[in-house]
Amino acid sequence: MKTQQATVPLRAALLGIGTVGSGTFEVLRRNQEEIKSRAGRGITITHVADLDETRARRIAGASVHVTTDARQLIGNKDIDVVIELIGGCGIARELVLAAIDAGKHVVTANKALLAVHGPEIFEAAQRKGVIVAFEAAVAGGIPIIKALREGLTANRIQWLAGIINGTTNFILSEMRERGQSFDEVLKEAQRLGYAEADPTFDIEGVDAAHKATLMSAIAFGIPVQFERAYVEGITRLVAADIRYAEQLGYRIKLLGIAKRREEGVELRVHPTLVPARRLIANVEGAMNAVMVHGDAVGTTLYYGKGAGSEPTASAVVADLVDVARLASSDARHRVPHLAFQPGALRNVQVLPMEQTLTSYYLRLRVKDEAGVLAQVTRILADAAISINAVLQREAGDVGGAGSQHTDLIILTHEAQEGAMNSATQRLQGLPAVLAPIVRLRKEELA
Amino acid sequence: MKTQQATVPLRAALLGIGTVGSGTFEVLRRNQEEIKSRAGRGITITHVADLDETRARRIAGASVHVTTDARQLIGNKDIDVVIELIGGCGIARELVLAAIDAGKHVVTANKALLAVHGPEIFEAAQRKGVIVAFEAAVAGGIPIIKALREGLTANRIQWLAGIINGTTNFILSEMRERGQSFDEVLKEAQRLGYAEADPTFDIEGVDAAHKATLMSAIAFGIPVQFERAYVEGITRLVAADIRYAEQLGYRIKLLGIAKRREEGVELRVHPTLVPARRLIANVEGAMNAVMVHGDAVGTTLYYGKGAGSEPTASAVVADLVDVARLASSDARHRVPHLAFQPGALRNVQVLPMEQTLTSYYLRLRVKDEAGVLAQVTRILADAAISINAVLQREAGDVGGAGSQHTDLIILTHEAQEGAMNSATQRLQGLPAVLAPIVRLRKEELA
Repeated sequence: MKTQQATVPLRAALLGIGTVGSGTFEVLRRNQEEIKSRAGRGITITHVADLDETRARRIAGASVHVTTDARQLIGNKDIDVVIELIGGCGIARELVLAAIDAGKHVVTANKALLAVHGPEIFEAAQRKGVIVAFEAAVAGGIPIIKALREGLTANRIQWLAGIINGTTNFILSEMRERGQSFDEVLKEAQRLGYAEADPTFDIEGVDAAHKATLMSAIAFGIPVQFERAYVEGITRLVAADIRYAEQLGYRIKLLGIAKRREEGVELRVHPTLVPARRLIANVEGAMNAVMVHGDAVGTTLYYGKGAGSEPTASAVVADLVDVARLASSDARHRVPHLAFQPGALRNVQVLPMEQTLTSYYLRLRVKDEAGVLAQVTRILADAAISINAVLQREAGDVGGAGSQHTDLIILTHEAQEGAMNSATQRLQGLPAVLAPIVRLRKEELA
Repeated sequence: MKTQQATVPLRAALLGIGTVGSGTFEVLRRNQEEIKSRAGRGITITHVADLDETRARRIAGASVHVTTDARQLIGNKDIDVVIELIGGCGIARELVLAAIDAGKHVVTANKALLAVHGPEIFEAAQRKGVIVAFEAAVAGGIPIIKALREGLTANRIQWLAGIINGTTNFILSEMRERGQSFDEVLKEAQRLGYAEADPTFDIEGVDAAHKATLMSAIAFGIPVQFERAYVEGITRLVAADIRYAEQLGYRIKLLGIAKRREEGVELRVHPTLVPARRLIANVEGAMNAVMVHGDAVGTTLYYGKGAGSEPTASAVVADLVDVARLASSDARHRVPHLAFQPGALRNVQVLPMEQTLTSYYLRLRVKDEAGVLAQVTRILADAAISINAVLQREAGDVGGAGSQHTDLIILTHEAQEGAMNSATQRLQGLPAVLAPIVRLRKEELA
C-alpha cells in the first residue's frame, strides 16, 4: 500500500486557466518526465474550472475534465490538490476556504488574498492539516519563499528589501535611461504589455505591499498584516529627481522593505534611493530581485523573472512537487506555512510609519538668494536631522537661463519619519521655498 | 510517542571544530529559540570530536562531550546526525562512510569528498535510508543546493554558471581595480586572509570544479563525475587582458560552468569573459554568485557570501533543520540526494573539452606590418570560426614608443574547442606572431 502510494500521481484541479494557468499546464506537460523523476511520482491536472469553457477545453485537451462550476469541483474525492489561479479576494477566497474545508491541499499565486486574508486561511489550513503553498505569490519564478522558510532557517533575519513589481521597475528603468516622464513611459509600458490597462495596483505600490507583507511574516515570524503596511507608489516621481539621484551616486527603485527593530517591525513600500554600486540597483526592466540580510549569512540576493506565464508556473509546479512529497507525511514535520510553528508566531507590532528610521533625499525649489541654505540647515539641525550631502543646481527647467530659482538637494543621515515630517512642514513654510518639497527615502542596504 | 518525538531535540555530533565548526556552534547557541520555533524541535550538539581537545573544550563548553576519537563517537546510539567539518578525502571519507553505516544522517561542507567519492557515499546513504545533506559544500550560505533541488524542480535546467570561489574572485577584482599583477595581488590576498598559505586548490580552479561538479549532478540528474571536469585556474592571467576585455565591454571571472547539450553535458572551470552589464560581472571581492537558467523560469541568480565561519554555518544549520524535520519521515518522500530519484539518474556523457562550444578571446602579439590581419583571419575562416570583433592596440609594454609590435585582440563567435585548438596552433606558427597566443573563453550568459 505504501509503496503503491508513491507511484500514484498527484491529482490536481486547476481553477482559472489564464496566463499562469496555461503556463502551468504547458510546463507540467513538457517536463513531465523530468518532474516525475525528481518528485518520485507524477503530477497531473485532472480537472479544470474556468468561466470560459471553450478556451479551457482548447488548452487542457480532451483527457481533462472541464467545468465552469469551480464550487462543485472542489469536493471531488479524486482531487488531492487545488491550484487557485483566479486572483483577487472575492470568489478566490471562497474557493480556497472551501478547498481547505474539503481537506484539499492548496497551491496559489494569489498575493492579494494571502496578504489580506492570510490569518483566516492559514488558520483553517492548520486546523485541517493541509498545505497552503504560495511560492508563486512572490517574485514569480524566484524561489524566495523557499529561501526564506528553509534556506535561511539558521538566521535571525534582520531585514529584506526587494524589487517585487516588474511593471514599476520597467517604468523606473525607462524613465532613467530615456529621461522621459512617468506618464510617457507608462503609456509605452501599456503598449508593450508591461503594464495593465488599469495599472493602479502596480504603480500605487499595492501589489508590492502584498508581497512585502507575506515576506515579512515569513522572515520575522509575525502574522500577515497588510493593513499595517505603509504604501507609496511611483506616480509622483519626476525625471529630475532620478537625474539628481544619479549625480549623487544613487538609483531610484520601488522597494518593498521589511526591517526588524527592537521596538517592532517596519513594513513599507516606497520609491527608494539605493547606492548605484549595489547589485539590486542594477536590476533593470521587468526583472525582480530580493535582498535578505540574516545575522549569520550576511546579505544574500535572489534574482529572476517576477512575472509571466512560465516563470510563475515554475513556482506553481515547484509547490506541487513539494505537495506531492509531503501530502502523505505527518503535518507536524512539514515546513510551517509561515516558516515558524503556529504557536511560535509572535505578535510583534508593525511600527507606525512615523516611527520608522530611514535616511532622506529632499529637493527644495528655492529663491537663489543668500541665507536660504542657512535657514534650511537650521531647521534640520533643530529637528536633530544631520546632513550627509548637499547639491545645489540651477533649476533650468523652470526659470530659464536668467532664473532666480535653484534646486537644493539634501541627503540626510538616518532620522525618524515623524521628526522628518515636522521638519518638512517647517521647511515648506519658509518664504524662500517656492514649490512643494520633494521627499524620497534612501536605504544603503549594506 | 509520536507527539513526544517532535519535542525531543535532534542530537548532533560535530567532527572538526575549526572555523565553520565554531560558527555552527555559535549560530545554534545564539539563535536556538528562533531555530526551534521554525524546526518544531531543538537542535543540540551533544558531542564534539577534534584532535585539539583543549580548543574543542573551550569552544563547546562543559555540557558537551569532547573526544579526540571520532571513530569511537560515530557508533554512539545517542547521536542522530553527524556533522563532518574535517575536510579532505582521507579520514573524512572513512568517518562519513562509518556514520552512514551506523545509520546516522550526515551533514557535510566537504565538496572535495562529495565531488570525488560522491557515487560511493550517496549509494551507501541510499542503501541505509539516511540523509547526506551538503548545502554548505557549495557557495557557503547561499541556499543554492535547495534552489536547484527543490526551488526549480519544474524546470529542465539548461545551464548554470557560478562564481563559486571567493579567493579567485577577490584576486580578479583587485587585479582589475588596481591594475596589479596576479602575483602582487595573491600576496596581498594571503596577507589579508583571503587566500591560504598554499592557495593551489583555489587558484588552479580545483575547488570551483568540485562545486561545479556537485551542481551539475543536481541540475541534470547525472552522477557526480569530477574526473571528467575541465579545470583551468587564473595563475596565467595578466593585467593586459583584463584591460582589453574591459575595453570590449567584458569582465573576466573564474566561472564554474555546466551546460546541457544534445550530445552530452559540458562541465568546465576557466577564466571567462562575461558582458560587463550582467549582474554576475559586478559580483566583486570574495562574494559568490550562481546563475541558473531553466526552460520555464528563465535566468535566475543567487548571491551571497561563499565562505567564512557563520555564512557557512548558516548552510550547515539549515541542513540540520531539514534533517530534524525529515529524520522520522519515510525515506521515499524526502528530496533525493542528487535531486533526481536514484533510479532516474541518467548516465549522460560529460563531453571531452574538445567537443565543448564557446566563444573566444584571442590576443596575438604580432609584427606591426601589412597583411598580418589577413593571414590571421584566413586561418580562422579556414577553421569555420567567425569573428565577432577585432581590436588592434600598440603593445606599449614591450617595445616602447617606437615599437614594431602590436596586440591583435579578436573576439570570435561560438566555435568548437577542438577546431579552435587546431586554429590556434596554426596561428602560433605564423612568422608574424611573436609570443605565445593568449586564449580565453567568453560566455554571453543571456
